[in-house]
Amino acid sequence: MKLKKFVEHPLFTRFILAVILINAVQIGFGTDVSIYERYESLFIGLDLLILAIFTVEIVLKLIVYRKQFFKDGWNVFDFVIVFGSIVLYNTHLVGVLRILRVLRVLRTISVVPSLRRLTAALFMAIPAIGSVTILMGIIFYVYAVIGTSFFGEITPEYFGNIGLSALTLFQVFTLESWASGVFRPIFAEVVWSWLYFVSFIIVSTFIILNLIVGEIVNNAQK
Amino acid sequence: MKLKKFVEHPLFTRFILAVILINAVQIGFGTDVSIYERYESLFIGLDLLILAIFTVEIVLKLIVYRKQFFKDGWNVFDFVIVFGSIVLYNTHLVGVLRILRVLRVLRTISVVPSLRRLTAALFMAIPAIGSVTILMGIIFYVYAVIGTSFFGEITPEYFGNIGLSALTLFQVFTLESWASGVFRPIFAEVVWSWLYFVSFIIVSTFIILNLIVGEIVNNAQK
Amino acid sequence: MKLKKFVEHPLFTRFILAVILINAVQIGFGTDVSIYERYESLFIGLDLLILAIFTVEIVLKLIVYRKQFFKDGWNVFDFVIVFGSIVLYNTHLVGVLRILRVLRVLRTISVVPSLRRLTAALFMAIPAIGSVTILMGIIFYVYAVIGTSFFGEITPEYFGNIGLSALTLFQVFTLESWASGVFRPIFAEVVWSWLYFVSFIIVSTFIILNLIVGEIVNNAQK
Amino acid sequence: MKLKKFVEHPLFTRFILAVILINAVQIGFGTDVSIYERYESLFIGLDLLILAIFTVEIVLKLIVYRKQFFKDGWNVFDFVIVFGSIVLYNTHLVGVLRILRVLRVLRTISVVPSLRRLTAALFMAIPAIGSVTILMGIIFYVYAVIGTSFFGEITPEYFGNIGLSALTLFQVFTLESWASGVFRPIFAEVVWSWLYFVSFIIVSTFIILNLIVGEIVNNAQK
Ligand code: NA
Ligand code: NA
Repeated sequence: MKLKKFVEHPLFTRFILAVILINAVQIGFGTDVSIYERYESLFIGLDLLILAIFTVEIVLKLIVYRKQFFKDGWNVFDFVIVFGSIVLYNTHLVGVLRILRVLRVLRTISVVPSLRRLTAALFMAIPAIGSVTILMGIIFYVYAVIGTSFFGEITPEYFGNIGLSALTLFQVFTLESWASGVFRPIFAEVVWSWLYFVSFIIVSTFIILNLIVGEIVNNAQK
Repeated sequence: MKLKKFVEHPLFTRFILAVILINAVQIGFGTDVSIYERYESLFIGLDLLILAIFTVEIVLKLIVYRKQFFKDGWNVFDFVIVFGSIVLYNTHLVGVLRILRVLRVLRTISVVPSLRRLTAALFMAIPAIGSVTILMGIIFYVYAVIGTSFFGEITPEYFGNIGLSALTLFQVFTLESWASGVFRPIFAEVVWSWLYFVSFIIVSTFIILNLIVGEIVNNAQK
Repeated sequence: MKLKKFVEHPLFTRFILAVILINAVQIGFGTDVSIYERYESLFIGLDLLILAIFTVEIVLKLIVYRKQFFKDGWNVFDFVIVFGSIVLYNTHLVGVLRILRVLRVLRTISVVPSLRRLTAALFMAIPAIGSVTILMGIIFYVYAVIGTSFFGEITPEYFGNIGLSALTLFQVFTLESWASGVFRPIFAEVVWSWLYFVSFIIVSTFIILNLIVGEIVNNAQK
Repeated sequence: MKLKKFVEHPLFTRFILAVILINAVQIGFGTDVSIYERYESLFIGLDLLILAIFTVEIVLKLIVYRKQFFKDGWNVFDFVIVFGSIVLYNTHLVGVLRILRVLRVLRTISVVPSLRRLTAALFMAIPAIGSVTILMGIIFYVYAVIGTSFFGEITPEYFGNIGLSALTLFQVFTLESWASGVFRPIFAEVVWSWLYFVSFIIVSTFIILNLIVGEIVNNAQK
């Protein structure tokens, strides 16, 4: 009971938030190679200290809440971020470790209530997007297959295989250089390609616009 | 009656869905030339099998529903996709055949109820767009004629004829490289061209924005 | 009275619509230089005939409605388009004449009731945009002056004078090559320029987004 | 009491508006170097006169309203713009002075009631954006750190340090040349970079779209 009070005390939360922010600042300075190399031992030491504090925090919460701890998505996130860092500490996966370290900054969201509510609202909007995502997936797949079959040899960097085609279609979907970069060189060789690109843009933006219109209408009627 | 029960049985639908998904996977791998060439006979055999299954499916449904079969748009789509493949099987229209084969993946939509409902809702939004499409068509036509007349000789790749001009205007409408790629080279020779491009962008985006605003308001008031 | 019945007869309107469409088709083919040169006399003859028909139409309407004719915006438009062509027929303003000829296609809107209603609704949305336009004008002006003063010598093609700066800001506002084309070359010489571009994008898109949100809310509450 | 009537008289406000507009026109012509050099003394004289009028205006208002003067944000803005110009008049901060001079054009907003109401409405929308801004800040920071660590050496102009990375992420967020300019050169060396860019675009646009949807729904329900 005493431990529970300690873990749920506002000062404890504020202390953790302070550690997260120090962590964020330290990570920021750490990206500057010249600063990092000068104070390397300081960086490593501070990082270890922060990791230790987070480990103690999570262990305490595990003792208090036990299995219930993992019912909250953010707790699972904290657990993975922190214990992932410990498990991989002396391995060669330096890149993964670095990303795990940066992701600790996202813990701010789980500690600040207003951000937590905001992200909860955002996650709530995802299921409504569900079947639209599947439909978009089917359309991307069909266009990616057609693109790979017909434009793969002309522009291998854009349509060389299904993965590249899907990536290029995502670029086209964001309307980024779809004509100047992707379409016009293909159009010079395949005349009907305009139908491929124009139809893809109309269909995909139409679906997304309808999703947004639907979201607004649904929320307004609640 | 027995046949109707068979065709409408959930297991039958699930089996067809499974065939569609196998079809999708096979088409995906088929885009990799090295894989395709190694297992060419397997690909051709599997494709024939899938086509046979779809043919049987549609024939059964035709027997059960007769003329009513064609009252559903998706059934017409299935019919065209499958019998188109059969009719063109030994012709030289390899490109059309390949596209027909890919489009079979879209059958997923007609088989999964939630996707079917979603696309139905999307098609419902089209009539409201009707007269806006005609208005946009008139505006595109007027600007395409002006563009072809005045910029056709300066930039034949963009405004060489009405078709190319309409395509370029679509690119401008999506705001893709409208200035850096299309407008600035013309502006260097025709000073008043800024009026052409700026007015087109303002008019076309204004119409589309009003369409979206109208859609939201109409749906919210239902 | 007889004349009024004649002018307002559905068949008369349909005939004018048909002439407008023939006009549109003729203008379209006329953009192809090789076709135009072959059938030049036919093009000129048909154009004269169409112009004559439109003139008779407007004269008849003027006789019937007199001063009331000019109370409708579309009638004024028709009058300017047709009599402008007549007045300028034998002048050297060939470019203006060509544009007047193309604009006759827009007469379709005034003849088809559904398009007329649609454009009326669009024009209704303009007053609400009024003070936003003034605000945007002030912001464009302030940024254009700053841009001309500080970046005019570095990139004269983008910020050489206030007019060019306003045009470049319109391009930046549409997010077209704002970074790759306009900003990054300036950023290489003027460090604080990022503040200029980022603030302009945030302020201008914020205003337009709020305008759209306001439009939706206002219309939904009617 | 007499002074208050004078300061609040409509003619006084109209006179100030006229001075602001003259100021705007003068600043506009002043950007043309050849015009400026010809009439330099006229420009300097007019500028001093305008500054004197604004100073008198603010001093009068300070006498009338005293401390209450500073309760209005626009008054504070006027004060800073005018007295900033006076304080810095003979310093070497010519650039700051020039910007202060241009910003006087913004005074139009504070003098015209409809523009004042419009901007008040815009500022009202900011608090609702508050926690979204913090969330976006965290996401930008996390991605900027990852970008600097992993792509900093490949593309120093885009990801050389956290500041440049944040700027590049803003460019990516506006979808400007995100693929053609930023992503594809990195993708040629770091395969997983597609995940970095695609996830950033999806997450950031999703948050902003939800903010807009939320704004519409909130305002519609008032
Ligand atoms: Na672009
Ligand atoms: Na763009």
